[in-house]
Amino acid sequence: MSQDVLSSVKAAGVLYLVPTPLDFGCDTSAALSESLPLATITQAAALSVWVCENAKSARAFLKRVGEVCPLHTPIQAQQLQELPREVHKKGDRQFDARALLAPALEGQAMGLLSEAGMPAIADPGASVVRAAHALGIPVVPLVGPISLMLALAASGLNGQSFAFVGYVPSEVSERGQRLKALEALALKTGQTQIFIETPYRNEALLQTLLQVLQPSTRLSVSIGLSLPSAQHHSADIATWRQRRWALDKQTPAVFAIGP
Amino acid sequence: MSQDVLSSVKAAGVLYLVPTPLDFGCDTSAALSESLPLATITQAAALSVWVCENAKSARAFLKRVGEVCPLHTPIQAQQLQELPREVHKKGDRQFDARALLAPALEGQAMGLLSEAGMPAIADPGASVVRAAHALGIPVVPLVGPISLMLALAASGLNGQSFAFVGYVPSEVSERGQRLKALEALALKTGQTQIFIETPYRNEALLQTLLQVLQPSTRLSVSIGLSLPSAQHHSADIATWRQRRWALDKQTPAVFAIGP
Repeated sequence: MSQDVLSSVKAAGVLYLVPTPLDFGCDTSAALSESLPLATITQAAALSVWVCENAKSARAFLKRVGEVCPLHTPIQAQQLQELPREVHKKGDRQFDARALLAPALEGQAMGLLSEAGMPAIADPGASVVRAAHALGIPVVPLVGPISLMLALAASGLNGQSFAFVGYVPSEVSERGQRLKALEALALKTGQTQIFIETPYRNEALLQTLLQVLQPSTRLSVSIGLSLPSAQHHSADIATWRQRRWALDKQTPAVFAIGP
Repeated sequence: MSQDVLSSVKAAGVLYLVPTPLDFGCDTSAALSESLPLATITQAAALSVWVCENAKSARAFLKRVGEVCPLHTPIQAQQLQELPREVHKKGDRQFDARALLAPALEGQAMGLLSEAGMPAIADPGASVVRAAHALGIPVVPLVGPISLMLALAASGLNGQSFAFVGYVPSEVSERGQRLKALEALALKTGQTQIFIETPYRNEALLQTLLQVLQPSTRLSVSIGLSLPSAQHHSADIATWRQRRWALDKQTPAVFAIGP
C-alpha cells in the first residue's frame, strides 16, 4: 500500500461488516430483531451493494431485514457480488479483493456478508477487509452473533486467554497428535484452545478427545448454537468418559479444551 | 464433580450469560434495542436474580432494559450478587462460585452480567459458568457485542486462526520481548495475536510495536469500540511508521498483529 493510494481516496465509501443469524435462514419464523440489534438491521436495510459468499442466501437475509426495516433498495435492484471460488481454494489470505470494492471507491457504502455469523471470523472475508484498508476505505463492524464466542463464554474455560485454531486433522493418528499438542499448550499456558469439525465427524472427534486427553483436562462442547435447542456441556475428561452427552451428527459443534 | 451432584439437580434453573453494550452506560440516549437483539433484552427483563461485577452498573443496565421491555420484577426487588473481590485478586480460575448459584439450584433462572460486553470473555465470570456446569445447571449464552471480535473482524487479519493473549507487560524491555515473541508466533503459524492495554498506555504500546516489529508485519488497532466514533486502522508496520494514526489515551483499544 503506497501513500499515494491512501491519500487519493479520501472521499471513499464505507465497508460495513454485517453479521447474520446463526440459523442459516432456517428459523425464519422468528423476526430478525430477535437475533440482531436494530442498529445492525437498519444499517443493512440502508445498503444496496454487497460482497457475499452466496447471492441466494444474501437475498434471503435481505428479505428478513426488509420484514423489520424497509429496504432502501428493492432486493431485485441490489448489487450482489459473490466472493470468487478462488478464495475458498487458495485461502482468503492470498486473494486480492480490491476490485470488488470499486463501488466503495466511488463513494458508495458497501456491506460484507457471510453465510452465518460474523464475516471474516472463522469465515471468508478478511481479504475484503484487508483490501478496504489498503484502499483507505473505512471499515465498520456491526454487532451480531459469533458462534465461537458463545461457545467460549458458555464453556467456563479461561476467557482471558484463548485461541481458535480452526479445523483439526481428519486422519485419526494425526488428529490424536494435534489434540495432544493443543492440550499440552493449553495446560502449559492456560490458554483455552477452541476448534471445530464438520458435523458428521463430531462423534469421531469426541472419541479421539476422550481417548488421548488427560483425565483432568477440561473439555467443553457446544452443540447446535444455531438452534433454540443449543446445548453446552463442559466437564473434565474423566467425567466425560463416565457420562457421555449425545452429539448430533448434522449440527455444527464448537469444541474447547483447557486446564 | 461427582455423578451424585449431576444426577441430584435435574430440576435446576438456568444460568443466562447476558451481554451488555460496550458504552459502559455512557451512550444512554440510544435505546438498548439499537445495540442488543430483542431476544437478549426480553430474556434480561424476565430475570430477577443476578451475579454481576458491580451492582450499581447492573441496576443502570436493568433500567435501560426496562425502557425497551417491562421488567418482570422491579429493580428494587431484584437480587444482585456481586462477584467478590477475591475473583479479581486471585484470578477467576481459582474462585469457587458455587455458593452464588444457590438460587439456580432451587430452580430459579439467573443472569450473569459483566461491566461491558460478554461475561467470561476478557472479563470475569468463567468461574460462575464453571460452577454452573459442576452443579448441572444449564448455561445459555445470549447474543451481544464482543469488542475483541469486532476488532478482529475489522482488522483484515487472519480470522480462521487467532488468539487473544490479554494484557502485555507494562515494563518497556519486557514488553518489547513479549511483542517480538508474539510476532514470531504469528509469522510462523499465521495465527493472529490479539492483545489489550490500559488506555493511558496505548500510545506507549504503539511506540514499542513500531520499534520492535518487522516492517512487513501487519498491525491493526481498533480504538473506541464503545463509541460511534470507533476507528479501525490496519496496515503493515512500514506504513504505520510513515503515517501515524492518533490514539486516544482515555479510550480502550484492541491491538492485533499478524502476517
